[in-house]
Amino acid sequence: MKPLILITNDDGYRSEGLQLLMRLAIEVGEVVVVAPERNASGLSHSFTANRPLRVRTVEERENLHIYACDGTPVDCVKLGQDYFCPRQPDLMLSGINHGSNSSINVLYSGTMGAVIEAAVSGLKAVGFSLVETGRPFGLSPAVPYVRHVIRYALDHELPPHTCLNVNIPVTDDGKLHGLKVCRQSHAEWQDSYERRIDPHGIPYYWLAGRFVCDDLAPDTDQYALGQGYVSVVPTTTDFTAFNHLSTLRPIECQAL
Amino acid sequence: MKPLILITNDDGYRSEGLQLLMRLAIEVGEVVVVAPERNASGLSHSFTANRPLRVRTVEERENLHIYACDGTPVDCVKLGQDYFCPRQPDLMLSGINHGSNSSINVLYSGTMGAVIEAAVSGLKAVGFSLVETGRPFGLSPAVPYVRHVIRYALDHELPPHTCLNVNIPVTDDGKLHGLKVCRQSHAEWQDSYERRIDPHGIPYYWLAGRFVCDDLAPDTDQYALGQGYVSVVPTTTDFTAFNHLSTLRPIECQAL
Repeated sequence: MKPLILITNDDGYRSEGLQLLMRLAIEVGEVVVVAPERNASGLSHSFTANRPLRVRTVEERENLHIYACDGTPVDCVKLGQDYFCPRQPDLMLSGINHGSNSSINVLYSGTMGAVIEAAVSGLKAVGFSLVETGRPFGLSPAVPYVRHVIRYALDHELPPHTCLNVNIPVTDDGKLHGLKVCRQSHAEWQDSYERRIDPHGIPYYWLAGRFVCDDLAPDTDQYALGQGYVSVVPTTTDFTAFNHLSTLRPIECQAL
Repeated sequence: MKPLILITNDDGYRSEGLQLLMRLAIEVGEVVVVAPERNASGLSHSFTANRPLRVRTVEERENLHIYACDGTPVDCVKLGQDYFCPRQPDLMLSGINHGSNSSINVLYSGTMGAVIEAAVSGLKAVGFSLVETGRPFGLSPAVPYVRHVIRYALDHELPPHTCLNVNIPVTDDGKLHGLKVCRQSHAEWQDSYERRIDPHGIPYYWLAGRFVCDDLAPDTDQYALGQGYVSVVPTTTDFTAFNHLSTLRPIECQAL
C-alpha cells in the first residue's frame, strides 16, 4: 500500500505552491488534500470551535482527494485526520507557502501552525515555504529539495514532538547550494501603525512592519537562506524554556 | 515614575479575569489596557494585516487607560506597544484567562499568543489562566499568587526570549498549596468531528475534542495543577528543537 500523505496550506487550495506539493506527493503516495477555501495567512495555530465547518469536495479520484474547507489550516489538519483520511496518514505536508516562515515568522504562520498541530497528534509533519524576495519568482529550483525532504521523511522516523520547518530561498541565478539543518534566528517585527481617518471621521489603524534580524550566526536559518541554502529547522511542540527552569526557581513559594 | 503595565487578554476587555488583573496591576503601576472588544479565544498567535483595526476608548483617567480593539490579542499587544503606551512598558500581562492554558493548550491560546508576542519584542511578559473545572468558580484564591508573580516580574529580569505561562487550579476547598516552576506536559486533543446535515441538505462539521494527557511526571504543569499548586512554565519564543539538531544532520545535502 502506498503511503498516505495529508496536505494543507494557508494560501488556499488553489495556490501554485500547494498544487506543486500535491504533484510531488502523488509521485510517492496516496494524497488527501484538506486546505482552506481561500487565503488564511497569519492565522498561526488558531482553530474553530464556536461554529461548524463547511467542506466542499473539489476532486475525488484514485490516489487523490481534494477538499476545500472554510476553516483555518489547523482545522484542516484536525478535520483531515479525523474525517477525510481513510487511515492515519504516514506523513503530513504543508505549503509550499508563498512567503518566508523562517526565524520568528514560524510563530505567525498558518502553514506552520498546521504542521505543529500534526506533530502534536503524533504525525510526521513538514512545512515548506518559499522566501519571496521580489526577484523573479519560480518554484522550479525548489523541486529537487522538496522531493528530497519528502523521501527523507517517509524513510526515517522524526524525533518525538518535533516537526520540520523548511524554507527555500530565491537566488539571483535560480541556483541553490544545498540544504542545511539550522536553528531559528532570533528576530522581531518592528511594528508601526498608521492612524487614518475614515470618510465618517472615525480613526482606523493600519499595521506596517519591518522585519529586523540581528541574529545571523552561521547556525541560523537566516544565515543559511542568505547563503543560498535551503534551511531546515527542527521545530518543537514543547515551548518550555528548559534552560531557564532553574533560573526561575526563586519565584517558587509555599501557600500564600 | 510608576512602572508602566500593558494588559490584554483573549476573553474581551469586559471579562471578570481582566478586570481583576487590572485592579491588581493598578496597585503597583500605571496601566494601559488594549484588549479585544469581544471574546477572541483560540486565536493563538494570529494577527491582522489585511484590514485596518478599529479602537474604542473605554476609559481614560490618571494611571488607567482602557481601549477595546476589534483585532486579535496579538494585534492588541502590537497596537498597545506602538501606539497607546506613552513609553515602552515595563511589564506586559495577559488574562486572567477563563480556562486552562497549561500543557499544549499554550499553542492554541490567544492569551499566551499575546504574551509570546510581547516577549519577541523584548518585553517582560506574563500570562495568567484559571483552570475552570466545573467546581465553584472563584478568582479570589488566585489573588495573592497573581500579586506575587507581578511583583517578582517587576523586580527581576526574565531570561531573554522567555515569558511566563502561569496557570491557577481550582481546588475543592478553594485553597492553593503554593507555586511551582514546571515544564509543559506533553498531551493532545483527540478530536472528533460530528457530521450533521443542515435544513438545506448540506453537511457541516462540528468539532468535539477530548484533552488526553499521559505525561504527569512530577516536573510537569499538569502534575502541579493536580496537586493544587499554581504552575509557572517558562515559555520560549524559540521553537528550535535543539536536542534534535544533530539527529537530523543526515538530511543535509549539497546542491541537487
